[in-house]
Amino acid sequence: MRAKFDMELNVLNDKLLEMGGQVESAIENAVKALANKDLNLANEVFTSDDIINSMEKEIEDMCLRIILRQHPVASDLRLISSILKMITDLERIGDQAQDISQITMHLVDKNYIKDLRHIKEMSEIAISMVKESINAFLVKDTQIIKEIIEKDKRVNDLFYIIRRELIDLIRKDIENSTQAIDFLMIAKYLERIGDHAKNIAEWALFSITGVHKENI
Amino acid sequence: MRAKFDMELNVLNDKLLEMGGQVESAIENAVKALANKDLNLANEVFTSDDIINSMEKEIEDMCLRIILRQHPVASDLRLISSILKMITDLERIGDQAQDISQITMHLVDKNYIKDLRHIKEMSEIAISMVKESINAFLVKDTQIIKEIIEKDKRVNDLFYIIRRELIDLIRKDIENSTQAIDFLMIAKYLERIGDHAKNIAEWALFSITGVHKENI
Repeated sequence: MRAKFDMELNVLNDKLLEMGGQVESAIENAVKALANKDLNLANEVFTSDDIINSMEKEIEDMCLRIILRQHPVASDLRLISSILKMITDLERIGDQAQDISQITMHLVDKNYIKDLRHIKEMSEIAISMVKESINAFLVKDTQIIKEIIEKDKRVNDLFYIIRRELIDLIRKDIENSTQAIDFLMIAKYLERIGDHAKNIAEWALFSITGVHKENI
Repeated sequence: MRAKFDMELNVLNDKLLEMGGQVESAIENAVKALANKDLNLANEVFTSDDIINSMEKEIEDMCLRIILRQHPVASDLRLISSILKMITDLERIGDQAQDISQITMHLVDKNYIKDLRHIKEMSEIAISMVKESINAFLVKDTQIIKEIIEKDKRVNDLFYIIRRELIDLIRKDIENSTQAIDFLMIAKYLERIGDHAKNIAEWALFSITGVHKENI
């Protein structure tokens, strides 16, 4: 029974890694499409959200099947319920990447009023948070997870830096306020992606320690 | 076994209703605090998000315990996995209500640059969507659920109406652009609340029909 469970868990872990990779690409390509004014890539991110949704469904079905058939002990059940939470956050990140692409589609034919330095930094941190959270979950490294959780602070700070910058831009150049608001929304979506990445790290921590930050 | 399952399901349904009620109050009070410039109420919404988070955790534990102990058949498993999804969306709505309250805390001592008509309409529709989705889930009424799903279109339209209005306001009165952006964020959070309410309706529909919109 245990060997069967471990085997199924391995498959589950592989699927989680695969879904994580897909979500990391979605964030990366959403910002790349914006930076390169690449309409095709924006469209690709938009449509590939379906793949992420299917992956979530597949992993969720696997989790419920394992619970049903294998009757896991408490610590294994905690592991599986953590995966169930992580994939929900991964799926939401996919949605936000799709939202960014939708705005990008309106922006590609315009001259941008701002550079993308901070937006790129936000996306890079978020991608590393997702990647490292899943890896740390698999190797059960609580120290790294705590460091990942801290990274979200920088993502939040960057959102407020961008917000400040855009408000100043609106004041100086009222004609471009619509575009400023589009960039503000993109920054907001990235800030939310950071929140979800932080959630993933927190669920990874919970799967190992059995304690979720809400209960500390 | 079936009687035990039905009994546990009844408790689960009651808890879901209770959590739904708490979330509906959070939306209602978040917008009421904004409208009445009521700092205490905004604080109350902010802190009571913990209650919603605990409710989610409790219902989730119950769902996993039922799956584990009762070995539900496919249709019952679908019911429980729908509840698991619905509470995730409910919890996210709580987060957005908290976000609205946080902005409200900065706004209460200012003269508002816009009336709250559309914001109130958004919140009223969202509250009714949550309430009716959960009720329709309990009585398994697919027709009502389809009508609830349609309501999200009006929420989205209202967001774009507010967005347009705020961009015009920024153009006319550049000094108040920070406040305009605060209102824009509030409208965005309400638009997201509508999305989550729509998700809840879609999971209710899935629990009855076994078909989720992603697979149609």
